[in-house]
Amino acid sequence: MTEKKKTTIVLFSGDYDKAMAAYIIANGAAAYDHEVTIFHTFWGLNALRKDEHLQVKKTFMEKLFGKMMPRGAEKMGLSKMNYLGMGKKMIKDIMKKHNAVPVNELVEMAQAQDVKLIACTMTMDLLGLQKEELLDNIEYAGVAAYIGDSEDGNITLFI
Amino acid sequence: MTEKKKTTIVLFSGDYDKAMAAYIIANGAAAYDHEVTIFHTFWGLNALRKDEHLQVKKTFMEKLFGKMMPRGAEKMGLSKMNYLGMGKKMIKDIMKKHNAVPVNELVEMAQAQDVKLIACTMTMDLLGLQKEELLDNIEYAGVAAYIGDSEDGNITLFI
Amino acid sequence: MTEKKKTTIVLFSGDYDKAMAAYIIANGAAAYDHEVTIFHTFWGLNALRKDEHLQVKKTFMEKLFGKMMPRGAEKMGLSKMNYLGMGKKMIKDIMKKHNAVPVNELVEMAQAQDVKLIACTMTMDLLGLQKEELLDNIEYAGVAAYIGDSEDGNITLFI
Repeated sequence: MTEKKKTTIVLFSGDYDKAMAAYIIANGAAAYDHEVTIFHTFWGLNALRKDEHLQVKKTFMEKLFGKMMPRGAEKMGLSKMNYLGMGKKMIKDIMKKHNAVPVNELVEMAQAQDVKLIACTMTMDLLGLQKEELLDNIEYAGVAAYIGDSEDGNITLFI
Repeated sequence: MTEKKKTTIVLFSGDYDKAMAAYIIANGAAAYDHEVTIFHTFWGLNALRKDEHLQVKKTFMEKLFGKMMPRGAEKMGLSKMNYLGMGKKMIKDIMKKHNAVPVNELVEMAQAQDVKLIACTMTMDLLGLQKEELLDNIEYAGVAAYIGDSEDGNITLFI
Repeated sequence: MTEKKKTTIVLFSGDYDKAMAAYIIANGAAAYDHEVTIFHTFWGLNALRKDEHLQVKKTFMEKLFGKMMPRGAEKMGLSKMNYLGMGKKMIKDIMKKHNAVPVNELVEMAQAQDVKLIACTMTMDLLGLQKEELLDNIEYAGVAAYIGDSEDGNITLFI
């Protein structure tokens, strides 16, 4: 009996292309039978946001951050050549032509493959994000859980 | 007798939020008894800069770079939504309300926990930074030391 | 008989300073007898582009992307303080004074040391890059090859 290999990714970035890279690696590793965890922190939390507007109690500053940050991966911009959304639109058009899977579907695929999606509770507090605003069936944890998951890992990435 | 686990982080980024993530992971890993190294290179060196202005001999270009780069982590901007410092100020206000530890104190905590802080000598040369300008009790090394430290590591990250 | 240590780097970024860091680590690891792979994806593919303009068949959008993206590492900008190329020029001048090796030469050194340079075929499609436009003697692969290469690795980085 051999132990499963492990891949753990910290998704810090809120860029569409980086989230795509993270989820492609995660789905690939899961397909090769790795135990995979994506720990979402800071702007990476936005990949887990639900699309709809939700009524939750927030301070003024939390509301402001909430409005400025994208609701879900599909609303994120590119890390390069975004040009106020133009570059992003081009990439999305090309993706459609190549039948490439958009990031929100990569997230669903990851959940279907039992990739563990974790939201960092400390940065949720900082950015004023609440559990109701994030996808269902994810886990909530802090840095201790991340260390525990990744210290026996094979592939450890910060994206 | 078991060997200690190892976490090695390359801190390349000069963004406040990324430095925060690096130092939170480093302090977390140290608390779980890992041997932890942060190798500061390029803009990440600014996290090690002293706050005060120091009289050191520099060429014109080195002075220019020195002036443009932040003196210490607290003067860094955010990687996203910085808005000429507004976003950074907001995050700092929220951090204060949540009693979150600012990065300069995370650096002190790391030193107290014996996290090895290394400044990359090659990029110090490129950016014109001198030892007098950086924090005391850090080490100076190049890529060979980084490879040696991380090749037996458990968690290896580039931030 | 001991197995070789392994270093695998995903080079996602199209910034000159990050490509420099990636190739310095790769060459360092190769010098310490690691088996080293750099998997170029998204903007990192530009580090592998040939300098010259080549006549290849492209759609309008692929031509546009091709024109906007740098042809080879030496044409990339900095991730910080680029100032429309000014910062980049400064860094290059300082590098020359310090006899630091420019990135296009670091790429040649890596090839001479048998570092495996891989271009991600999926993102080549997205960005409209064709094999003729990339350096000779590189390999072409997808995420499965990356997982296979890095799951037994010692140092795994995403840059």
